[in-house]
Amino acid sequence: MSKRRPLILISNDDGIDAPGIHALAAALVQLGDVHVVAPLQEQSAVGHAITMREPVRAHPWPFRGPHGKIDAHAVTGTPADCVKLAIDKLLPRKPDLVVSGINQGPNAAVNVIYSGTVSAATEAAILGIDAIAVSYCRWVGGDFGPSGVIAQRVAEMTLERGLPPGILLNVNVPDLPLHEMKSIKVTRQAKSRWEEAYSERMDPFQRPYYWMAGTFVNLDEGGNTDLDALDAGHVSVTPVHHDLTAYEWLNELRTWDLAPETTES
Amino acid sequence: MSKRRPLILISNDDGIDAPGIHALAAALVQLGDVHVVAPLQEQSAVGHAITMREPVRAHPWPFRGPHGKIDAHAVTGTPADCVKLAIDKLLPRKPDLVVSGINQGPNAAVNVIYSGTVSAATEAAILGIDAIAVSYCRWVGGDFGPSGVIAQRVAEMTLERGLPPGILLNVNVPDLPLHEMKSIKVTRQAKSRWEEAYSERMDPFQRPYYWMAGTFVNLDEGGNTDLDALDAGHVSVTPVHHDLTAYEWLNELRTWDLAPETTES
Repeated sequence: MSKRRPLILISNDDGIDAPGIHALAAALVQLGDVHVVAPLQEQSAVGHAITMREPVRAHPWPFRGPHGKIDAHAVTGTPADCVKLAIDKLLPRKPDLVVSGINQGPNAAVNVIYSGTVSAATEAAILGIDAIAVSYCRWVGGDFGPSGVIAQRVAEMTLERGLPPGILLNVNVPDLPLHEMKSIKVTRQAKSRWEEAYSERMDPFQRPYYWMAGTFVNLDEGGNTDLDALDAGHVSVTPVHHDLTAYEWLNELRTWDLAPETTES
Repeated sequence: MSKRRPLILISNDDGIDAPGIHALAAALVQLGDVHVVAPLQEQSAVGHAITMREPVRAHPWPFRGPHGKIDAHAVTGTPADCVKLAIDKLLPRKPDLVVSGINQGPNAAVNVIYSGTVSAATEAAILGIDAIAVSYCRWVGGDFGPSGVIAQRVAEMTLERGLPPGILLNVNVPDLPLHEMKSIKVTRQAKSRWEEAYSERMDPFQRPYYWMAGTFVNLDEGGNTDLDALDAGHVSVTPVHHDLTAYEWLNELRTWDLAPETTES
């Protein structure tokens, strides 16, 4: 390892003023030089959106850590935009690690697909940088301290061992004090879905609108999933990649006769 | 198979007035009852974003197919919103198939992650419905006819054979007339990335802004990728799922000592 302190980029999807990103910065300043580049406004459920059709701005931002000011920018874009722009323009060099979070609320099971928190880490992984997403399994308030301790340890190990190309770690921390938390489990993403029940309403001008609502359904038969681990009070760590190919089904699909009659086969 | 005509939901990310979705509807009306639920405005590169923090509206929309009016709604949201809202509120019953496209421009390699076109199909797959994403590998204009012929054949086969739970087909069609197109290849997603070079500019008030620009880099060593197939004039069909677990690395990660000193192990 190089003797210089690691450069750690921090981002999130709850926005630069969220308590979770402050807890994360406080936990990681002990490991390296921390730079924060995070969305100006909350960007939950943006998935892996990037901003192409309009420009983005990066505002230098007052961001205080436990030992004073931390270099920070607020970006008028998505979490993936933050990581792309930070690496291309805002950081002094390519970071050694990108950590996204600490998200207010879990990002386990199918929610990985919708998560802006995970997308910041995914973007880093695509760009060849080790990355971690950290989420705290509580929707409102609470104590981000234990999640910070976990994030610090996972980041420390990642800096030491390194991740394979394209793989990030998706960490979910249960809403428990550290001494009640069970061990850290390496898990897989549980099969699940949100079953929609949009709320259908009328605006003051008697025009209809819909508001997303729904119920989370765990469709998994269990065994080593992130949801199983969290339900039992463990921390879940799922290695995540962005190759969406369903390899197990390639050969079956090759038996299909997909050629229209008008093309050569 | 049931004797009633299949119900086919069509969506896209280029917006309900884009030429590609009209070509798709024209191609699929021969296979079943087509309903269009698509974004009111272009939603490219939105990834798997969903709209939670604000309501969405669905406007009945005049949409003409080759044999007359097609039932259609324009939604003030993302492609994933369109599929969710259509299935929960706008369609007469659960559709037998969801087809997204025909996108103006390819959605191969890493672009699958950023693609709104693919995200509509992914949302359907999550909800347990067979789904196909279709993209035409030309960025501006051109003839969507050949892509429509391919889409029709892939949809026909999918209605006949069915897909495994959670898997969708991501189809990319080269910019060639049908008689010059080579066979249909079942492929995997090529390893690749966009290397950013944000354009840094000044607004009329001398305030800086950034506009995303970059170069696509194929990092794959080749062999059966979507990019290989398209470059050689084939249609690529990649089976895509949404389980992002990097299974091949679970055991290695289990050798890491991830527990902070303060938790039990």
